[in-house]
Amino acid sequence: MENEKRIIKLGLVQTYCESDPSQNVERNEDLIRSAAEEGANIICLQELFNTVYFCNQHDEKNFDWAEPIDGKLVQELSDLSEELGVVLIAPFFEKRTQGIYHNSLVVIDADGSVLGNYRKMHIPDDPGFHEKYYFTPGDKETGFQVFDTAFGKIGALICWDQWYPEAARITALKGAEIIFYPTAIGMLKKETRKQKKIFMDAWITIQRSHAIANGCFVAVTNRIGKEKGNKFWGNSFVAGPFGEILKQGGEKEEIVIAEIDLNSIESQRREWPFFRDRRIDVYDGIMKRLID
Amino acid sequence: MENEKRIIKLGLVQTYCESDPSQNVERNEDLIRSAAEEGANIICLQELFNTVYFCNQHDEKNFDWAEPIDGKLVQELSDLSEELGVVLIAPFFEKRTQGIYHNSLVVIDADGSVLGNYRKMHIPDDPGFHEKYYFTPGDKETGFQVFDTAFGKIGALICWDQWYPEAARITALKGAEIIFYPTAIGMLKKETRKQKKIFMDAWITIQRSHAIANGCFVAVTNRIGKEKGNKFWGNSFVAGPFGEILKQGGEKEEIVIAEIDLNSIESQRREWPFFRDRRIDVYDGIMKRLID
Repeated sequence: MENEKRIIKLGLVQTYCESDPSQNVERNEDLIRSAAEEGANIICLQELFNTVYFCNQHDEKNFDWAEPIDGKLVQELSDLSEELGVVLIAPFFEKRTQGIYHNSLVVIDADGSVLGNYRKMHIPDDPGFHEKYYFTPGDKETGFQVFDTAFGKIGALICWDQWYPEAARITALKGAEIIFYPTAIGMLKKETRKQKKIFMDAWITIQRSHAIANGCFVAVTNRIGKEKGNKFWGNSFVAGPFGEILKQGGEKEEIVIAEIDLNSIESQRREWPFFRDRRIDVYDGIMKRLID
Repeated sequence: MENEKRIIKLGLVQTYCESDPSQNVERNEDLIRSAAEEGANIICLQELFNTVYFCNQHDEKNFDWAEPIDGKLVQELSDLSEELGVVLIAPFFEKRTQGIYHNSLVVIDADGSVLGNYRKMHIPDDPGFHEKYYFTPGDKETGFQVFDTAFGKIGALICWDQWYPEAARITALKGAEIIFYPTAIGMLKKETRKQKKIFMDAWITIQRSHAIANGCFVAVTNRIGKEKGNKFWGNSFVAGPFGEILKQGGEKEEIVIAEIDLNSIESQRREWPFFRDRRIDVYDGIMKRLID
């Protein structure tokens, strides 16, 4: 039924982080409650939501902050999801075993059940963002996935994955109606205002392009605040299935709420039928590092 | 040498089309001369440059307009390239044999030699754009390619290819420093000004995203003018390797000239090293129509 609507509300929790993880958990839980009060059905927290962005330094002690998937943190969030009847995307530093740590997220359904976890597949390592030291890249098994939640089929990727059309494409081909991107992106002290304008514009553009190419929604949560050398730029946003920005946050703490109609995906893909014409017979070059 | 510059000038020829192909060839040749006078080294014409956009109707007679690759049209353009010392990208309706026609382009080097041809790989078919009737999709052999010209390594895709990140990615992985997109895109009569804003924004965004994802230049030539039911929107543009718009045309006849430094690709890819982290071990889903 193209004319029937499937309206849901997304809530993106954009906040700062402080050094005590329990304070961050508490504040995020309060914000989740507020988002639910505003009617949000699917709530997405930011990347590594309960810790500072510790990857700006190489420090062995930071591994202490990692949490198992089946531990207290996820249990507490699962209880909250059930209580509020919301789908929750919660990204955190995961300890899988001694010596294997991931930049992960769990997707919790509206009844509190954990539907699964995604482990960040593309790991950056750049000045101020030393992630390859901390995070093992995700395996195929927990890679690009779709979670069939009470409020729609969703995919969730993490931060640096944003820059890879392949990740969005595979997630969409698996059926994602919305792709979420919890994020921690910002500027280093030495970088200029002009650079910030170019960087943020590129960051928004590439993510809007995933909505366009795949005819699906894209929702991005990014942190705010200063932490040592980094200043995170917020600007969490939701884009519609032709890339149009539906809601966008600023650089302060806020919950970005967007009401969307999942059935607009159907009309978008009828009008601009990109999936129809993909040349899957000649895309094998994608599987190479460089075609040299 | 990161600090050495490799400055070249691009010239995008944006114009209208009239019913007599020879008039269009003549006008485009004049515009090519003007572009060369302005210092352009690589000049890109628009999609199907010598004919009206005949795909708005199903009409068998239109196949008469198709030209062979080794015919008079390409010879004339090749002579002009040699005379002016410019690289030329010339898109036209190609007759490959009786019953096989392509939406093609030739790339001619600055010495007049024809480096090869590209045949449009993704063929649309939508109200006002009945291309599947006229054009056989390109084969792998003439598919995503790179041409090593006197002024840099370039790729060239055509119009609807714009919406496919796979096409840009493979072209960039083959070494393209600039990806050209000759185009014929516009509005149908029934479409509103609001729709135009959304469509054009999506069209610019997706192409800028190819520059960003691949750290290369993107240059787009689009036609202008009213033709039966279609009104083409021009706005030819050049984007830099982080997607920044360097030059953009309006909706009238013009030559969009952009001076670019090909060595900025090196610095862009050092600062934002997306190619380094591609997960080629898990991209096989790209080869499927749908992952169901």
